[in-house]
Amino acid sequence: MKNLKNLKKGQALWRRAKKIIPGGSQLLSKRAELFLPEQWPSYFKKAKGVMVWDLDGNRYIDTCASIGASILGYADEDVNRAVKKAIDQSNISTLNPPEEVELAELLCRLHPWAKMVRYARGGGEAMAVAVRIGRAYSGKDRIAFCGYHGWHDWYLAANLANDKNLDGHLLPGLAPKGAPRALAGTVIPFNYNKIEELEKIVAENDDIGVIAMEPMRDHEPKNGFLEKVRKIADRVGAVLIFDEVTIGWRLNVGGAHLKYRVNPDIAVFAKGMSNGFPMAAIIGKAKVMQAAQDSFISSSSWSERIGPTAALATIRKMLDKKVPSHLEKIGLIIKNGLRQQAEKLGVKLEIGGFPQLIGLAFDYGSNSQAVMTLFTQEMLKRGFLANGSIDISYALKEEQAKKYLHAVQEVFAVIRQAVLKNKVKELLQGPVAHTKFIRLT
Amino acid sequence: MKNLKNLKKGQALWRRAKKIIPGGSQLLSKRAELFLPEQWPSYFKKAKGVMVWDLDGNRYIDTCASIGASILGYADEDVNRAVKKAIDQSNISTLNPPEEVELAELLCRLHPWAKMVRYARGGGEAMAVAVRIGRAYSGKDRIAFCGYHGWHDWYLAANLANDKNLDGHLLPGLAPKGAPRALAGTVIPFNYNKIEELEKIVAENDDIGVIAMEPMRDHEPKNGFLEKVRKIADRVGAVLIFDEVTIGWRLNVGGAHLKYRVNPDIAVFAKGMSNGFPMAAIIGKAKVMQAAQDSFISSSSWSERIGPTAALATIRKMLDKKVPSHLEKIGLIIKNGLRQQAEKLGVKLEIGGFPQLIGLAFDYGSNSQAVMTLFTQEMLKRGFLANGSIDISYALKEEQAKKYLHAVQEVFAVIRQAVLKNKVKELLQGPVAHTKFIRLT
Repeated sequence: MKNLKNLKKGQALWRRAKKIIPGGSQLLSKRAELFLPEQWPSYFKKAKGVMVWDLDGNRYIDTCASIGASILGYADEDVNRAVKKAIDQSNISTLNPPEEVELAELLCRLHPWAKMVRYARGGGEAMAVAVRIGRAYSGKDRIAFCGYHGWHDWYLAANLANDKNLDGHLLPGLAPKGAPRALAGTVIPFNYNKIEELEKIVAENDDIGVIAMEPMRDHEPKNGFLEKVRKIADRVGAVLIFDEVTIGWRLNVGGAHLKYRVNPDIAVFAKGMSNGFPMAAIIGKAKVMQAAQDSFISSSSWSERIGPTAALATIRKMLDKKVPSHLEKIGLIIKNGLRQQAEKLGVKLEIGGFPQLIGLAFDYGSNSQAVMTLFTQEMLKRGFLANGSIDISYALKEEQAKKYLHAVQEVFAVIRQAVLKNKVKELLQGPVAHTKFIRLT
Repeated sequence: MKNLKNLKKGQALWRRAKKIIPGGSQLLSKRAELFLPEQWPSYFKKAKGVMVWDLDGNRYIDTCASIGASILGYADEDVNRAVKKAIDQSNISTLNPPEEVELAELLCRLHPWAKMVRYARGGGEAMAVAVRIGRAYSGKDRIAFCGYHGWHDWYLAANLANDKNLDGHLLPGLAPKGAPRALAGTVIPFNYNKIEELEKIVAENDDIGVIAMEPMRDHEPKNGFLEKVRKIADRVGAVLIFDEVTIGWRLNVGGAHLKYRVNPDIAVFAKGMSNGFPMAAIIGKAKVMQAAQDSFISSSSWSERIGPTAALATIRKMLDKKVPSHLEKIGLIIKNGLRQQAEKLGVKLEIGGFPQLIGLAFDYGSNSQAVMTLFTQEMLKRGFLANGSIDISYALKEEQAKKYLHAVQEVFAVIRQAVLKNKVKELLQGPVAHTKFIRLT
């Protein structure tokens, strides 16, 4: 058992960071306060597979996979070898990297409905490119959307209410200050599996030019939801964009939409596609993608070589090793194990999501978040970086899954006793974790 | 002399690219058509220092430095060593990379007026973050701007005219299709060194919340231009953003604004800062930067390790080797050499820009672009990637500068004869190069 009092360097650096970086981290989901305030190791020295070493030299098994950015595991040898060769041969020049074309052809082979490809270096950025292309093609600016799509103006504008006091209401936690008020009303949300909500939006707005959504995230589509969305998009002349940044490459090698045989006009990939090296792709039908030529969409950093090199190596390994099958197998072991232990020990736990991307929530009313914090704290003591999101990677093998479940068993016993004796907060060595922003799905 | 007919692989791949990538490249400025249509090598196999090898194995001296993204030179050993170590130790994990904090502290030491830092992975993207923070802090959405700032909606909206037919007028070549029309009028341009234009904008608009500009690009500020902009920003309560993506790190190690002792509220860096590895930084005054916490600004790819690692290694080397002095020295050799040879051979050449970032234009009326194309073609035959933009890198030494000037001498003689005999187009082995978009400065 690790003594959390000895995790000094990470917390000291985190305190320094918050003085010089507003919010401390670049990704909201990597804030220490969202895991374990005042105790979280916060920074890593190195990582390999599913192992992470903090600044104090402690080693952990990491079940969050860099918030889903690592599907193969950290510092994957095959991807790293390809990337380091690209770096030795220079990642840039005035000429272009040929890997761009190779990757475009591979992405179109995997998604035969798509014929053209553009790139970016981040998921939210790539969604902004996709929305630009969608608006350019349809000639209509208004957007209907479902799910989470990043930080850009087009999306955050959904949180600009007519009444400034209501700003932030629709997507709680996504503060929209600084998104231009002129965009208020240009983007309208609907909920997943609620086709009637999208029907209402298109009935009330004759200028919906883009429908942007995650094809799935926590739930399977029901009652032909995706097919119905597709039909509405065709009927009203809207470009249908599937945001595969989170769910892509997990259910199968490619977009999750392939599994459901519903094709968008544009699909967007990032994160897992390149095993954590900054990279994103916007793929689509030729006539839609060609609208990119009517709009200035250009960046120096999109023309470097690491991104496409890492993506090629990652996708080829995913194909070769049948990675999605592994993710499902291990995910099921963990999901079932969690359920059995929660039942056995009488811990009130809700388990959601696909096996590849599991979501946990404790059900103790106003005490739920304190219990989650206790879970993270006790798992950390036992050598795990763990919270309510379990992102399975290829490097997470049955052996580590069993170690995780063994630790969970111990921690659930602690939780059960703590709840019974009403001592949850007493057992916490620091404050309760902040809650994440709640996604509108 | 290279036979351009033997440059087959690059052009073949470029033709394949244009079928699957709208526009062919990710950066407009890397389109083959902007250099030498149907002949440009287009793709690189490897690059080192100022040398680039194409797919056919030809070697060139590259005087464009990846359109300014490489200040140290390609595959710099010190930067690459640091980056490859970061990759071996994993570029991501659920925890954060400590290099983020180290870099933030270094950037604030170099710019003592700045106290806080955020990151992104591209210049245009970082400008969008800066504008978001500026609007959030000032509480006012309208923007006055000068110069080039990328592809995002806030900026391209400047090209949305009241009359759709005039779209694209203000920033010729920057097609704004797909930028939401609701943003029309939210962003207003002024020209560099024309303080009266900015005065007029703030007199006519009481809601200017952001003034965004390149502190310089081609020209020095005149008549206290920067000081006057600073005063206007303070008077009207606008956040002053300096876009240092292109000019930064060239005149001195840090923002070019340091040289002129005028401090913005926010400065934005990218490109050269990390020697071509995707990275960008937004630095600013604490009270302004803290407004980032009132707005959701977050991305997975901003939390990886290569970016800050490459930036730290690049900046340290720039400090250690006094890189800006080298850039100036070599740039002056080239600038003076070009001027002398143009005079000696009677070639009508305009030479502009700082020595570190030279701009060339031939002055032959409607034939000017054909002459530029001939220049690029003849330089290519002699083993140079060269056009009207010369970006000096630390790897460009006196020896290569002399080789370049020697080749220029030969090519200027060809141009002089071609012009005299009215045979410029006859000598071109392919079409005239397309002109770049013209920047509004």
